[in-house]
Amino acid sequence: MALRGPLFRLLRNNLSHSCRQSRAQSVAVLGAPFSRGQKRGGVEHGPKVIRDAGLIDRLSGLDYSVHDFGDLNFRHLEKDEPYMDVKFPRNVGGANKMLSSAVSRAIGAGHTLIMLGGDHSLAIGSVSGHAQQCPDLCLIWVDAHADVNTPMTSPSGNLHGQPVAFMLKELQDKMPDIPGFSWTKPFLSSRDLVYIGLRDVDPGEHHILKNLGIQYFTMRDIDRLGIQRVMEVTFDHLLSRKQRPIHLSFDIDAFDPSLAPATGTPVNGGLTYREGIYITEEIHNTGLLSVMDLVEVNPVLGANPEAVEATASLAVDVIASALGQTREGAHVSIRTQTPHLCDPFARE
Amino acid sequence: MALRGPLFRLLRNNLSHSCRQSRAQSVAVLGAPFSRGQKRGGVEHGPKVIRDAGLIDRLSGLDYSVHDFGDLNFRHLEKDEPYMDVKFPRNVGGANKMLSSAVSRAIGAGHTLIMLGGDHSLAIGSVSGHAQQCPDLCLIWVDAHADVNTPMTSPSGNLHGQPVAFMLKELQDKMPDIPGFSWTKPFLSSRDLVYIGLRDVDPGEHHILKNLGIQYFTMRDIDRLGIQRVMEVTFDHLLSRKQRPIHLSFDIDAFDPSLAPATGTPVNGGLTYREGIYITEEIHNTGLLSVMDLVEVNPVLGANPEAVEATASLAVDVIASALGQTREGAHVSIRTQTPHLCDPFARE
Amino acid sequence: MALRGPLFRLLRNNLSHSCRQSRAQSVAVLGAPFSRGQKRGGVEHGPKVIRDAGLIDRLSGLDYSVHDFGDLNFRHLEKDEPYMDVKFPRNVGGANKMLSSAVSRAIGAGHTLIMLGGDHSLAIGSVSGHAQQCPDLCLIWVDAHADVNTPMTSPSGNLHGQPVAFMLKELQDKMPDIPGFSWTKPFLSSRDLVYIGLRDVDPGEHHILKNLGIQYFTMRDIDRLGIQRVMEVTFDHLLSRKQRPIHLSFDIDAFDPSLAPATGTPVNGGLTYREGIYITEEIHNTGLLSVMDLVEVNPVLGANPEAVEATASLAVDVIASALGQTREGAHVSIRTQTPHLCDPFARE
Repeated sequence: MALRGPLFRLLRNNLSHSCRQSRAQSVAVLGAPFSRGQKRGGVEHGPKVIRDAGLIDRLSGLDYSVHDFGDLNFRHLEKDEPYMDVKFPRNVGGANKMLSSAVSRAIGAGHTLIMLGGDHSLAIGSVSGHAQQCPDLCLIWVDAHADVNTPMTSPSGNLHGQPVAFMLKELQDKMPDIPGFSWTKPFLSSRDLVYIGLRDVDPGEHHILKNLGIQYFTMRDIDRLGIQRVMEVTFDHLLSRKQRPIHLSFDIDAFDPSLAPATGTPVNGGLTYREGIYITEEIHNTGLLSVMDLVEVNPVLGANPEAVEATASLAVDVIASALGQTREGAHVSIRTQTPHLCDPFARE
Repeated sequence: MALRGPLFRLLRNNLSHSCRQSRAQSVAVLGAPFSRGQKRGGVEHGPKVIRDAGLIDRLSGLDYSVHDFGDLNFRHLEKDEPYMDVKFPRNVGGANKMLSSAVSRAIGAGHTLIMLGGDHSLAIGSVSGHAQQCPDLCLIWVDAHADVNTPMTSPSGNLHGQPVAFMLKELQDKMPDIPGFSWTKPFLSSRDLVYIGLRDVDPGEHHILKNLGIQYFTMRDIDRLGIQRVMEVTFDHLLSRKQRPIHLSFDIDAFDPSLAPATGTPVNGGLTYREGIYITEEIHNTGLLSVMDLVEVNPVLGANPEAVEATASLAVDVIASALGQTREGAHVSIRTQTPHLCDPFARE
Repeated sequence: MALRGPLFRLLRNNLSHSCRQSRAQSVAVLGAPFSRGQKRGGVEHGPKVIRDAGLIDRLSGLDYSVHDFGDLNFRHLEKDEPYMDVKFPRNVGGANKMLSSAVSRAIGAGHTLIMLGGDHSLAIGSVSGHAQQCPDLCLIWVDAHADVNTPMTSPSGNLHGQPVAFMLKELQDKMPDIPGFSWTKPFLSSRDLVYIGLRDVDPGEHHILKNLGIQYFTMRDIDRLGIQRVMEVTFDHLLSRKQRPIHLSFDIDAFDPSLAPATGTPVNGGLTYREGIYITEEIHNTGLLSVMDLVEVNPVLGANPEAVEATASLAVDVIASALGQTREGAHVSIRTQTPHLCDPFARE
């Protein structure tokens, strides 16, 4: 493991000096019942089914103090004509603005945050709110799709296929002024982003990935390198220069459809259960997870109740793993005292 | 990758000089609705269900000019007594003779050919027709079974378990004169063949594999080496001396029965979806695929319509992958201009 | 492979000198229809469904002389109050005493033994009976669970979660005098045990594993190392000093629940079919397998007949693989003449 050598310890020590808060022993859970980033109804029930699958109990069992902040109450805007081909721009923009504030507050209050979607357009608000508190965050995007279309390249006009384009500084001049989004501007450098699990990338997205030199791992890359090496390279890429907070944006469709059938845009040949858990275990082991999105669980799209339950259970497993549940077991508290990752008052 | 070094470029250049046609931008699809190589009805409907699963649209989407030549119209011979224990020798021989001519013509006309079976006895005609045009072809056989029984070793007498024995020069003196097969004689050296995916090999077949020193990879070998290394060794074995056309004969039962249930002789512990796609991606990446058989999809044997659809969809995915569909996506035409692989007028 | 070098041949030769019996060409099958080591009914029907799935024919097909000794006839004790929190101690103790004698006799008679459970508490009798004849045996425990709770650490009080604690010398002073177990005392050193497949380990168990320095491989370790490397390290750990008999205790719940649904304590993220077969192939290839337990197939817990059949078939496959069925096939007898592994009269 790249991060277990002397460099890692050095970085760890440096962080200790630069941070003033103790690391969050508390986890906040925030539901975002929103589906206007795409066209299929049902994904707004994601937070409910994930909670019903036992999320809060599971996290409490990991010895966290768990604060369930409930669901955000998004305002529906009736008048919301498409802009160019972009669908529901004002609804998506408004929901994300609200979410951004809520995420920022939760992080400011010292929590590690779990955001339950809803569709993946919500990452605009989640990551931007996180970045308000932790401008040096890095982003790990686990997904079958790159979600980096711009309004000009998007084949569908659905905003859940475009959130990353709203974040990247390098795409600033490619983004029109979309109604509903005046509150945000790009904040992330393309070198601070890694994709894992891609297997359905649109031509415009492929052009962006290549042009910006973004680090990404398709399923073919995972087949070639193995998931262990993929995680090593991911951390080398994002953390070798310095430790910093991780935002993990996890689309359940990264998993193979046989494991996560209840989702809107399944693609064959996805992550195995064990690969997904390995990813989150490794992220937990960095000690740097600050916010995790879990999105695109859509109970309406399960063929039967078992399919919905399997998908929601998988979401719980992967969240618990990101927060320290191990396959090896543990006989002492699984978390060690480390300083909080992101201290709003400690700028470099 | 063994093939990406200077040697590869050198071979590529040499080929350019020895070939006069430009590489096929056109793909021909040819159905072979035939089931007499085995005893279970239904596999003659393979071409229909694979087309119904969207094959032609998928290939057209890859920017090929797609020519669907429809299905061959095989003549059924009523009088066809077993010879030794070999079942339906004249029907199998006659169908393969017709197929061989059709394949030869399609390759001669400059197409890359996709042959849709039907049972795997059809490979006799497909590979021999290909070899008429491209005598230096090599053969990659992806299958749970070795299909190299002779009439003397076959436990069942079904010809779909024997096609490779008809091709191998080294087995010439082991093969009796079977009625229906006077039109063909062995044309392939055992060193020009690689098996991938074996996991149910008859004793007589094992003897042949070992005796002839054939390069093969069982599922255990894939477990040991990983599919990436298996493909490297495959290409080293077949292509390190010179570039030459690849005949890919893909039996859908190479996949695990959980993925390809609608087939006649399923065996547990098969290829994953991702391994199958990796194999075909790598073959596409050589730029040398000339003919691909996709055989043994049997819609009658699916337990329900979903099982049939899954199997047929998988067939479409694996064919599309062999022809250049990528998991990474692409923003320019996925195929580059390369000379046609097999030029009937350019003998070494 | 660590075991294929000169050291291996040397050890093999040494064994030849120290043993007087020829290796068992005969396999004994012994059913243990017992379920009192846990609370769910049905696992006592394990021996029947595994035989019904064709076990005896399959083993006979491997050219063994197969002796089916039928099922043990356990006496049910009505009066069996819990001791501390331990449930059914006298029934579990009595059944294991009977099993231990039967195993000892079968090994003494020169058979390789297959013990069909029943629940995993039966390993107490099976391994101890084996150890009576072969005191230098080593134990490979393939399981989702460590089954090494003591009566003090067990969360449930079920004895199928505690069998290894009864065996380990190092835990002797942690074990109370449980009624029903006066006939046995610890016989195994913790360095002679390797776990494979763990993914649900209780806190008390984790403490024991770490404290005793037991070699174990969780599913995460398999993800990191690959199953090939796991088996290499397993054999290095157990066999590098000397060849000795292997006791393989295989809990069907080591497999992923999608493959082995009919079992009492399934845990997601288990072994693939191919990993399970790889483990048993490697164990067969050592030539040292002496006893194999196959436990926790519970037909009552399958959601439908297909689930039960799949689980029982998997049990047959994994037993046949441990006894020499190969994926590569074979054209001569798969077993070579080697001396019997464990000679009761030849102490070091």
